[in-house]
Amino acid sequence: MFWDSDVAKWLEAASLSLATHPDPQLEALVDEVIALVAQAQHADGYLNTWFTTVDPENQWKNLRDWHELYCAGHMIEAGAAHYEATGKRTLLDVVCRYVDHIASRFGPEPGQKRGYCGHPEIELALVKLYHATGEDRYLELSRYFVEERGRQPHYFDQEARERGDDPANFWARTYEYNQSHRPVREQHQVVGHAVRAMYLYTAMMDLAREYGDASLHETCEHLWRHLTTKRMYVTGGIGTSGQNEGFTSDYDLPNESAYAETCAAIGLIFWAQRLLQLDCQRRYADIMELALYNSVLSAISSDGQAFFYENPLESSGHHQRQPWFFCPCCPPNLARLFASLGEYIYAQSETDAVVHLYIQSTGKLAVAGQTVTLRQETNYPWDGTVTIQVNPEQPATFGLRLRIPGWCQSASVTVNGEAINLTDRLEQGYVRLERRWQPGDVVKLELAMPIERLSAHPEIKADQGQIALQRGPLIYCLEQCDQTEPLHRLVLPPAAALTSHFEPDLLGGVVVLRGTAAALDDADWADTLYRPDPPATRPTSITAIPYYAWANREPGAMQVWLPASA
Amino acid sequence: MFWDSDVAKWLEAASLSLATHPDPQLEALVDEVIALVAQAQHADGYLNTWFTTVDPENQWKNLRDWHELYCAGHMIEAGAAHYEATGKRTLLDVVCRYVDHIASRFGPEPGQKRGYCGHPEIELALVKLYHATGEDRYLELSRYFVEERGRQPHYFDQEARERGDDPANFWARTYEYNQSHRPVREQHQVVGHAVRAMYLYTAMMDLAREYGDASLHETCEHLWRHLTTKRMYVTGGIGTSGQNEGFTSDYDLPNESAYAETCAAIGLIFWAQRLLQLDCQRRYADIMELALYNSVLSAISSDGQAFFYENPLESSGHHQRQPWFFCPCCPPNLARLFASLGEYIYAQSETDAVVHLYIQSTGKLAVAGQTVTLRQETNYPWDGTVTIQVNPEQPATFGLRLRIPGWCQSASVTVNGEAINLTDRLEQGYVRLERRWQPGDVVKLELAMPIERLSAHPEIKADQGQIALQRGPLIYCLEQCDQTEPLHRLVLPPAAALTSHFEPDLLGGVVVLRGTAAALDDADWADTLYRPDPPATRPTSITAIPYYAWANREPGAMQVWLPASA
Repeated sequence: MFWDSDVAKWLEAASLSLATHPDPQLEALVDEVIALVAQAQHADGYLNTWFTTVDPENQWKNLRDWHELYCAGHMIEAGAAHYEATGKRTLLDVVCRYVDHIASRFGPEPGQKRGYCGHPEIELALVKLYHATGEDRYLELSRYFVEERGRQPHYFDQEARERGDDPANFWARTYEYNQSHRPVREQHQVVGHAVRAMYLYTAMMDLAREYGDASLHETCEHLWRHLTTKRMYVTGGIGTSGQNEGFTSDYDLPNESAYAETCAAIGLIFWAQRLLQLDCQRRYADIMELALYNSVLSAISSDGQAFFYENPLESSGHHQRQPWFFCPCCPPNLARLFASLGEYIYAQSETDAVVHLYIQSTGKLAVAGQTVTLRQETNYPWDGTVTIQVNPEQPATFGLRLRIPGWCQSASVTVNGEAINLTDRLEQGYVRLERRWQPGDVVKLELAMPIERLSAHPEIKADQGQIALQRGPLIYCLEQCDQTEPLHRLVLPPAAALTSHFEPDLLGGVVVLRGTAAALDDADWADTLYRPDPPATRPTSITAIPYYAWANREPGAMQVWLPASA
Repeated sequence: MFWDSDVAKWLEAASLSLATHPDPQLEALVDEVIALVAQAQHADGYLNTWFTTVDPENQWKNLRDWHELYCAGHMIEAGAAHYEATGKRTLLDVVCRYVDHIASRFGPEPGQKRGYCGHPEIELALVKLYHATGEDRYLELSRYFVEERGRQPHYFDQEARERGDDPANFWARTYEYNQSHRPVREQHQVVGHAVRAMYLYTAMMDLAREYGDASLHETCEHLWRHLTTKRMYVTGGIGTSGQNEGFTSDYDLPNESAYAETCAAIGLIFWAQRLLQLDCQRRYADIMELALYNSVLSAISSDGQAFFYENPLESSGHHQRQPWFFCPCCPPNLARLFASLGEYIYAQSETDAVVHLYIQSTGKLAVAGQTVTLRQETNYPWDGTVTIQVNPEQPATFGLRLRIPGWCQSASVTVNGEAINLTDRLEQGYVRLERRWQPGDVVKLELAMPIERLSAHPEIKADQGQIALQRGPLIYCLEQCDQTEPLHRLVLPPAAALTSHFEPDLLGGVVVLRGTAAALDDADWADTLYRPDPPATRPTSITAIPYYAWANREPGAMQVWLPASA
């Protein structure tokens, strides 16, 4: 019943792509699909093909479960992106009419339903529509949906009774599932369905920024801290359980059964970007990067043809990417994220150009009353050397903020070859270089990328006594096909030396980690199952690959965490 | 539909109890129940109250799933036990008539069904009936059922087709589930439903002994080795998965999700006893003892009022004993095992009296043409001192075999105060003392019981890097209520000293193990979830209790295996 959202996400991704990679054939296809969408719109503005063709009796009858406003949200995002990419109003006008219809049905006025969607999405979409159109009423509608959420009497209770259902029979059993268990400012724990949570929090930050709403901002900071200090995998994956596609309890982060849905990690990136817009702190960007290079990037095969819905940190080899899903939310979400990556790499204010992520690219930023072009050249994440050519249209004074990642213990920066003292210039993890920039100025950043062995907080039972390997922003894993011993027998003692090597022909070119670890030896166990002497170990060489690249060769076991002792 | 088996198991347990603890009130109750059972018998001998009162259309229609012969088996065991305990033929005659009916319906002759039960049980019961009556035809029927099992054309296929079902739709998907996937002599792996497997293998050993059938014996030895070297928990629990209530794959022995059904461990004891009857080897008795003191004894609460169906080796505290079950097979199985414990403690042959288990008791054995009374005095398993008074009616020469348990590295034996050189007299783990025994001779056994730290075979992933504590035959566990730190934070390094202490007021009187272990410290973690430095540890005292005694105080976490390093 939410198939419209898949079409909408494709329209958005295609539009975003047209903005940076013009393609008349793709543009014609987009126009064709938009024409079909426009034809499906009712005279009163209503637009949802499921509730038009399959289940017309049930329009707006079950906001809790049936994703109608969620689908509207994705179509709105598509309309805004299409307009911004092409200047065409074809889809924008359609969604504006639809939003006007929605605004007439939902709200606090007499005769309106005080409803909101069980799956947040339209809230962040309406902020984009506001930016595309400049119409305050779209921002107001977003605020209404966010503020109404979780208020008593509870809309989903009322709505269930109107359908003749007992609200207590809600299959998910708790409104924590859709983050409507209490008003948003009273939510202090990250709970429920992870994608819904991320989309809601993203909209809350949008509104915090648009309205200068400090209490929404504080709520988000609190939720962020809870998520990233108690409920996040080392890959940036979030949402432990498949049961609610979401959060369970603090430190409950099992590896093999990790749900860690692709869309949830993408939502985490959306939210991190909004937090950065109000507060340029490294800790937000660090996790945006972590999720991007690990839990998100793992979701797509190296040939781009198959996808993970779940991104576990351990596998017996049965978990493999699929070309498509019955619920195909993740693949088009990846498409629209990758097609808009510039929005996550760069940021701008009147006084500052900001580089959050190091990815070879050219960014055009509106800073100091002109367009400043930043040209990044880098082999990142394989090494930590980043050269940025700063090209203002004319010489001008402004700040250039460059993130010094939290994983980096040793960084240096030069401007036109001259070393910069970083200590004086660090602001919340960003080095800020303010000067009169000339076209062609070159900033060079060197980020040391030694191999790190990570341990997990002692409360994370699943990772106790184990270590994970990290280099730069990449979390590593061991796949069976790279090892000579069975993966489940390997131990990585603290003393085992590890080195990194770029392998141009492996998995599209990756840096692998190699070293000598230990393998548990069963040679002297014969028919013994339990005995007083612990198993002996023998040295064995191991190879680790970036986590994102696993499951691209023959199926086999995979582990991110390895025991540190026998 | 197998409720008759619960009544039968109660009748058997009550009869066994009458043999050692005469009780007119109980005997009258047994007689009353037997009269009811007799009234339910059809004129042709058929006896099953479900298929008489609830589902009369479906007699003998689904041997694969419906437990009809299984129920018959339990009633036969009850009839034999009742006759042997009381000399009364009331139930014995009923079951003989029923078996004659069964023998007329099932067999290789024309007009008979070549069937056998999906749940083995009647096979071992018929051997008991043969012993009670001396009628060869009961032994022959047992042999028929065992030999027919798994032959082609497969009876369960034919039977399903006769019901109009597709045999391929068998819910368990494989005849490994009920050990009918191939003829029994071609079975080399312990597979399927664990209780079914144990009951079948027990009957196979019975037949191996009665018929001197070497190939059945060899098959059982092979299966025993497979089970005890690849598919058994350290507690003697067997059957990993709740899905098939049985076996999965080699070394797949997760702790928290362990099924380890009570009845399966009891069946393992039955089988071990049969193996010992043909081959008095310590390795069978060691595991009989292990299962008895751990996976079986854990199944009953310290007040005797509540039971475990599953006996996991780790728990968050939600797994608690229940007063009864929808499928109540386990509690009466415990009752009949405990009421017949003498058959497992002692064994006899014409030339030898055997003590397999050390349990304070008096055994009357038929040896050397007379009754030899053995009187064991011991505080076992709390200490390893066992005094056995040997009382033949008259002085006589015979052997006394005493098991030196495999867990014991240092044992000594005296006869009337004189030390015996064990090395010369050990036969397959039993010391054999042959002499002219006089009434009042005293044998004293000293078994050293240091605390052992067990490691698991390197292929058992669930136990890697972990240790379990054992003292004597008892496996220990840690329960949260005895610790000052959260159980999941504890580490037990090899250097941590442990001592044992008898606590008379704890859990009915148990030896606890105490020591100083390490607790993972989160004091310096603040808001960090992952970091390069491993967690620090601080010393903490721990107390371990016998595994069987867990879950008798306030609910809380429990672990058998503890990490050996942080």
